[in-house]
Amino acid sequence: MSGAADGRLAAKRTGIDTQHETVAYMSTDCPLCRSEGFAAHARVKLTTAAGRTILATLHHVADGLVSLHEVGLSESAWRRLGVIPGEPVAVSHPPPLRSLGHVRGKMYGRRLGEEALTDIIADIVAGHYDDIALSAFLTACTARPLDDHETVGLTRAMVEAGDRLGWQGAPIADKHSVGGLPGNRTTPVVVAIAAACGLTMPKTSSRAITSPAGTADTMETLAPVDLDLPAMRRVVESEGGCIVWGGAVRLSPADDTLIRVERALDLDSEGQLVASVLSKKIAAGSTHVVLDVPVGPTAKVRSAAAAEALGASLERVAAAFGLATRIVTSDGTQPVGRGIGPALEAHDVLAVLQGTADAPADLRARALALAGALLELTGAAARGRGQEVAGAALADGRAWAKFQRICEAQGGMRRPPRAAFRRPVLACQGGRVASIDNRRLARVAKLAGAPADKAAGLELHAAVGQRVAVGEPLFTVHAENAGELDYALAYVAANPDILALGDPS
Amino acid sequence: MSGAADGRLAAKRTGIDTQHETVAYMSTDCPLCRSEGFAAHARVKLTTAAGRTILATLHHVADGLVSLHEVGLSESAWRRLGVIPGEPVAVSHPPPLRSLGHVRGKMYGRRLGEEALTDIIADIVAGHYDDIALSAFLTACTARPLDDHETVGLTRAMVEAGDRLGWQGAPIADKHSVGGLPGNRTTPVVVAIAAACGLTMPKTSSRAITSPAGTADTMETLAPVDLDLPAMRRVVESEGGCIVWGGAVRLSPADDTLIRVERALDLDSEGQLVASVLSKKIAAGSTHVVLDVPVGPTAKVRSAAAAEALGASLERVAAAFGLATRIVTSDGTQPVGRGIGPALEAHDVLAVLQGTADAPADLRARALALAGALLELTGAAARGRGQEVAGAALADGRAWAKFQRICEAQGGMRRPPRAAFRRPVLACQGGRVASIDNRRLARVAKLAGAPADKAAGLELHAAVGQRVAVGEPLFTVHAENAGELDYALAYVAANPDILALGDPS
Repeated sequence: MSGAADGRLAAKRTGIDTQHETVAYMSTDCPLCRSEGFAAHARVKLTTAAGRTILATLHHVADGLVSLHEVGLSESAWRRLGVIPGEPVAVSHPPPLRSLGHVRGKMYGRRLGEEALTDIIADIVAGHYDDIALSAFLTACTARPLDDHETVGLTRAMVEAGDRLGWQGAPIADKHSVGGLPGNRTTPVVVAIAAACGLTMPKTSSRAITSPAGTADTMETLAPVDLDLPAMRRVVESEGGCIVWGGAVRLSPADDTLIRVERALDLDSEGQLVASVLSKKIAAGSTHVVLDVPVGPTAKVRSAAAAEALGASLERVAAAFGLATRIVTSDGTQPVGRGIGPALEAHDVLAVLQGTADAPADLRARALALAGALLELTGAAARGRGQEVAGAALADGRAWAKFQRICEAQGGMRRPPRAAFRRPVLACQGGRVASIDNRRLARVAKLAGAPADKAAGLELHAAVGQRVAVGEPLFTVHAENAGELDYALAYVAANPDILALGDPS
Repeated sequence: MSGAADGRLAAKRTGIDTQHETVAYMSTDCPLCRSEGFAAHARVKLTTAAGRTILATLHHVADGLVSLHEVGLSESAWRRLGVIPGEPVAVSHPPPLRSLGHVRGKMYGRRLGEEALTDIIADIVAGHYDDIALSAFLTACTARPLDDHETVGLTRAMVEAGDRLGWQGAPIADKHSVGGLPGNRTTPVVVAIAAACGLTMPKTSSRAITSPAGTADTMETLAPVDLDLPAMRRVVESEGGCIVWGGAVRLSPADDTLIRVERALDLDSEGQLVASVLSKKIAAGSTHVVLDVPVGPTAKVRSAAAAEALGASLERVAAAFGLATRIVTSDGTQPVGRGIGPALEAHDVLAVLQGTADAPADLRARALALAGALLELTGAAARGRGQEVAGAALADGRAWAKFQRICEAQGGMRRPPRAAFRRPVLACQGGRVASIDNRRLARVAKLAGAPADKAAGLELHAAVGQRVAVGEPLFTVHAENAGELDYALAYVAANPDILALGDPS
């Protein structure tokens, strides 16, 4: 029997979703809280009989949620601790977080050695760093920027904290976009071209966190993406490429945690960015990586000079791991393609692959630039000839055929859904599109239901610089139900300048 | 009527104590979460019809705790928002935290101007900074240390964010201890001596946060301390001094928040420490302040050189506010007096004031050093004569008479309680006390029930350097019930070296 007398309490699932934060709920009158001095908001260590442990933040509950002999768990704590209802859980004071001493040292100007970085990242992956500690680490690395040595050490620590994939043969091609741009869904096209040209490109992609669609969300409307490692391996062995969700493998698991805090602080220190990008690629077993860097005033990288500095740093650090990289800068001022939302972006991808007359030219050009760079970097095309080789694979249907085979190998090709509810948003005046607010446009797509509703989002009918007449459609909102269509349209009505029109003459 | 349709939900008190953190609980299926895109762990803004607003962290609840049309509030959120059950509350996205831009600027090496610091501190006091932002601010100020100008600006911003007291006449005397040492309860003695010598000393003290007793906890066993400002004023007008709990007035309210995060990071940057100490003193209307700085390897200030640097910085910044300061360094290696715990420390204070034969000499000497420095600093005693003047006031009973009158004026003198359950801890071997672990000793006192149980704690029978024979008592644990006595003794049994004995010859 478990109870407070032996320092153990019965686990209870509370159903409270605290996202990444692990929370434990104990009664205010719990004798254990009193005797151990567990104050509200203290960090506590939870240990199962099998020896599984997590740290959690303690919240006190006056009544109802848990009894005196229970410890309630948030969904994240329940998942990480892996208990069954009523299972005895020991609650104790957490051990001191020794690696925080390295973070303090960094604040005072000491360099972070490999061992220190390994300790810090291991503690972060184990969930031992709360928001205060995470923020201190990232702030210290911004105020006292990482040098190349430290960035290499951080990258290695991030790789070693997770799984690593290995592939037969070389080169292993990969691509990555730094900083999101709505609709910038080049990955399926690049993988299809690269594999059609004989490269091996085992691509893992992410789902949307704050955007209306991630590559995995878009790809899921075309084929299953939730493959485990053996299934992924079979697809790559037969077709040379895949586009799957990366969630089934734990590549550089500290990265998501660090990105969440960087986003809250609106930080993008170069050392962290380089380690973030490269650790995932090294862990994925890649040998040649092309990096897509959209540059623009509201993009992550704001100037050509910043892109060049980032590229130089990426190349130096990548070289320490024997990884070949190439930066491709591009216009980061407006959305790419027409669709924003999983299925709408998939339609753009299909149009480019099928070479239809109305295929979005910007998406096609970007995909060719990246595929071309990758072909050159891997030696599959001569320097200066990459885009031509890539273009040929797209034009003669090899890329489209390869894409269909990849989809079949991943479990069967699907037709992306169309939304039942659509409404165009019309121009209230004539003029030239002066600018597009990417952030608020993404918000419209999310209010319409994306990415959870696959068909939801919006379709752009005008690009920056294009002239529209009064009453012409600027974009069409797509939704799977009338309520969400209304929500999105109400937001559009309250924000009439998402597409700013100028020059009405 | 309120409900999700108009963006308002009915307030519900959940009884969940999340300490300082404000948490809002909404159903996972709440239409508002869906339409507004409120993800779990997002920050949301809550607004009452009367226009009162707070920010809170959102937790999603699967079922039970709140309905679709309710928003649950943690105790802290309930208190800060000041609502009644069922009151409609609008939930919206919080505005961007503009002052965080200044924190980012500091990371990149920009100095913090007065306006930037005022904005940051105002946002902190309003509860707009979460742990990530607080940690970033403190880390940035450690990695890029504040200069005197910035420290003056921070001090001023912290003063202006709260209440300010004003007193008739001058000087207004004050004292402050930097970094706690168990049992270092000089304040009641210093106030009694200062007031007996004609100084005005309106002292506000704090309750324990992590220690077994704060000065307010100890003083409360001798007299009421929970006085509002008019009552405090009456005591000071009639007796020249008081020792009350500072919680009734909001002096430098950002300080507690910053100290919580500094403690989590184990940071004690000089700029923050100076602003923390001086802002409370300036807000309290003090003109002359003596600072007690215990120096020792486990104390907040670890060396004489560090104490000197801190003193110089304090004096420079204090001068900008017309505040006279004097640093008094002291031995920070072991507890002061015999008692640890509210009532046990009160007994030490009474013994010193009454001049009994067994009064702890170290507490007496420290109190005289501080009172003497204060008398000299204010001009009430000639340079080099302060301790003598203070000692006379103690020896001839004036300080004790004054203390009794202050207690009466605060609402009536009390006799500190004695614990019903006591148990001595005996030396298992003979030897000389080599060292005392202050931190673990404080833990024993807390496990015994201090500070909530006023009589609980422990009484030391041996000091560092003192020789004890096997079987002699090292200290006695005091508790108000048998269970807590057992908890404390079990911890002592598991930690036999809290008082380390060496040199058994």
